[in-house]
Amino acid sequence: MNAAMQAPELQVSAWLSTIEPLSLAALRGKVVAVYAFQMLCPGCVSHGIPQAKQIRETFSADDVAVLGLHTVFEHHDVMNKAALEAFLHEYRVQFPVAIDQPSRTGPIPLTMQAYQLRGTPSLLLIDREGRLRQSHFGRAGDMAVGAEIGHLIAEPAPSSAACTDDACAIR
Amino acid sequence: MNAAMQAPELQVSAWLSTIEPLSLAALRGKVVAVYAFQMLCPGCVSHGIPQAKQIRETFSADDVAVLGLHTVFEHHDVMNKAALEAFLHEYRVQFPVAIDQPSRTGPIPLTMQAYQLRGTPSLLLIDREGRLRQSHFGRAGDMAVGAEIGHLIAEPAPSSAACTDDACAIR
Amino acid sequence: MNAAMQAPELQVSAWLSTIEPLSLAALRGKVVAVYAFQMLCPGCVSHGIPQAKQIRETFSADDVAVLGLHTVFEHHDVMNKAALEAFLHEYRVQFPVAIDQPSRTGPIPLTMQAYQLRGTPSLLLIDREGRLRQSHFGRAGDMAVGAEIGHLIAEPAPSSAACTDDACAIR
Amino acid sequence: MNAAMQAPELQVSAWLSTIEPLSLAALRGKVVAVYAFQMLCPGCVSHGIPQAKQIRETFSADDVAVLGLHTVFEHHDVMNKAALEAFLHEYRVQFPVAIDQPSRTGPIPLTMQAYQLRGTPSLLLIDREGRLRQSHFGRAGDMAVGAEIGHLIAEPAPSSAACTDDACAIR
Repeated sequence: MNAAMQAPELQVSAWLSTIEPLSLAALRGKVVAVYAFQMLCPGCVSHGIPQAKQIRETFSADDVAVLGLHTVFEHHDVMNKAALEAFLHEYRVQFPVAIDQPSRTGPIPLTMQAYQLRGTPSLLLIDREGRLRQSHFGRAGDMAVGAEIGHLIAEPAPSSAACTDDACAIR
Repeated sequence: MNAAMQAPELQVSAWLSTIEPLSLAALRGKVVAVYAFQMLCPGCVSHGIPQAKQIRETFSADDVAVLGLHTVFEHHDVMNKAALEAFLHEYRVQFPVAIDQPSRTGPIPLTMQAYQLRGTPSLLLIDREGRLRQSHFGRAGDMAVGAEIGHLIAEPAPSSAACTDDACAIR
Repeated sequence: MNAAMQAPELQVSAWLSTIEPLSLAALRGKVVAVYAFQMLCPGCVSHGIPQAKQIRETFSADDVAVLGLHTVFEHHDVMNKAALEAFLHEYRVQFPVAIDQPSRTGPIPLTMQAYQLRGTPSLLLIDREGRLRQSHFGRAGDMAVGAEIGHLIAEPAPSSAACTDDACAIR
Repeated sequence: MNAAMQAPELQVSAWLSTIEPLSLAALRGKVVAVYAFQMLCPGCVSHGIPQAKQIRETFSADDVAVLGLHTVFEHHDVMNKAALEAFLHEYRVQFPVAIDQPSRTGPIPLTMQAYQLRGTPSLLLIDREGRLRQSHFGRAGDMAVGAEIGHLIAEPAPSSAACTDDACAIR
C-alpha cells in the first residue's frame, strides 16, 4: 500500500485537442502524466512541452495518458484561449490540453492551487489507482522521468470490478 | 563598390525596448543585424532569438546594432503589442524591437513585403553604407553568421564627411 | 514467466576500475546494464558512455549495476589495455569495465559473439533473474532506457535463497 | 600594421591526411586555422574537432587553410601515430594533421612550446601575412570564431609577387 494522496480532480474551464472532456476519474487504470505549463514560459517551451511529447511517443496510450494543463498565473490577458489555440497549432501539440479554471480571488488558477504547484513547467505523475506519486517543478531528466513512469506502469492495475463482500461498484 | 541594393527603411507601427524610435538611416556607419520573427514561431524561439542575443553579446555595440522586427503574418489577433511585451519580458529580449507596420490590404506587413521575406525567422545583414548584404531565411549557422558580420565590420566605414567637388555635406 | 533467455556469462580478459572481478552470477538480484563500447567509436564517446554514466547517476547501486564492456572488433593494436586505461581516466568513467576476451580465430571477441551484438555502442539490460531483456544497438533514447530499467526494477527480486533446509531447487 | 608576432613555423614529426608536407610559409596569403588537439582529450573530441570541421565547411579553401596539430603532452605511449591514424579514420577527419615534434627533454612537444599553449584544444588563427592573431584555449564560441576568421579574410592579402621586373625582394 502506497501512502501517496489521491490526486485531486482537474478543475477545467475548457478542453482543447480532444473531442470530449476528460477527467482523472475516467482515466483510472492508466498512468497519467499531467504537464502544467504556460505558453509564454520559456522553460515550458524549451523542455517541458518537448518532454511531454516524448512521453506521448515513448509509451503506449493503453498504459499512459498525457494531458497538458494551461495554468496561467501571470499575463492572463494575453495567454487567453485563442492565443493558446494558436500556440498548440504552431507547436504541434496533439495531446489533450485543459485550461485550468481561473480563480475569482487571485492570479493562481484552481487546479494549480489544489496541487500546490510552485510554477511552470510542473510534471505530475498519477498512478493507475489515481494517486499522486510525483510532482516535479522545473527541468526533470528524461531518464529519471522514464524510470518513474516505467515503474508505475509495472505496478498492477486495479481490478476492473471493485467488489467488497457486500457489493460490486461500477468504477 | 558592392552592387548590393540599398536596404529599404523599416516601416514601424511601434518600438519596444528603446527610449526613442530608431531608423536604418540613423544607424548608418554601423553594421545592422535585423532579426525578423514572430512570437509564436517555434524556430524563432528555439534558434532565431537566441542567435540574435548571441550577436548582441559577441559584437561591440559600436560596430553592430541588433534590432528585432516583429513581422506578424498569421494569428494577428493574438500576436498583438501587449502579448509581444509579455513575450519580450519573459524571454529577456533586451535589444530594441520594432513592430512591422500591418498592411491594410493583406496579412503581410509592410517591411516584410519590402524585403520580400519568405517567413520567420529571417536575418537581414546591412553594411555600414546601408546596403542589404545578406537575407537568411530559417536556421543560419552561428559560424557563418559570425563570419559575415566579421567581414562587414572589417569593411571601411563611410567617411564622416561626404564631399563632392562642390560641397561637403554633414551626414 | 518471461520467455527471455538467460544472459550468457561475460568472458573477460581483464577488469578495470574494480577491486575484484565481477560476474553476472554474482550480480543476480540486481538489474544489470552492460554497455558494450570501443574507445575509438565516435557514437560510444558522444552518447553511449554519457548514457551509461547517467544510468549510474539515476538509479541506486542497490537496484542497478552498470558495467562497461570493451568489445574491440577493429584497430585491435591501438585499443589495448594501456590505451583503455588512459581513456577511462580522461573520460572519468568510474564504473567497472571488463575487457571482452579476444577470439583466437577472428576479430570479434567472445562475449560480443555470445550476445550476437551488431556493433558498438550496444546496451544490454539484464533482469534480476539474470535474463537478457533488452539489447539495443546504436543510440537509444534516455526516456525509453529509463522506462525499461524502471520497469525491471519494479519486478520482484528472486528470493534470496533458492535453497531450503531440505533441498535446493533449480530456478 | 598589426603588431601581432610572426607565427613560428610548425615543427612536425609526421603529416597525416596530406600527400605532401605543409608549412605556414607555403600557406602565406591564406588565413590559417591550426587546431591543436590530443585524441584522448574529451573537450577536443566533443567540440574542438567538430569546430575545426565546421571551419573547413564554412570557408573556402582558397581563403582559409585548416590544419590539425596533434600536440601530445600526456599518455605518449598510447597516443602514437598508429592510434592517431585509427582516430582520424573513425572520426572522419579529412583535413591535414601534423604530429607535433616530441621534445627530447620533457613531455611538451616543440610547436606546443613555441606557441606557449596552455593545453588542448587550442585554436591558433594566423593571418594572410603569417602573423599569429588569436590563440584560444578551451571552448571558443562558433560565432566569435567565425567573426575573427571573417575579419581576417577581409584583410588584404599580401601582393602575390614580391618580384618586380628588376629584382625579387626577400619578404
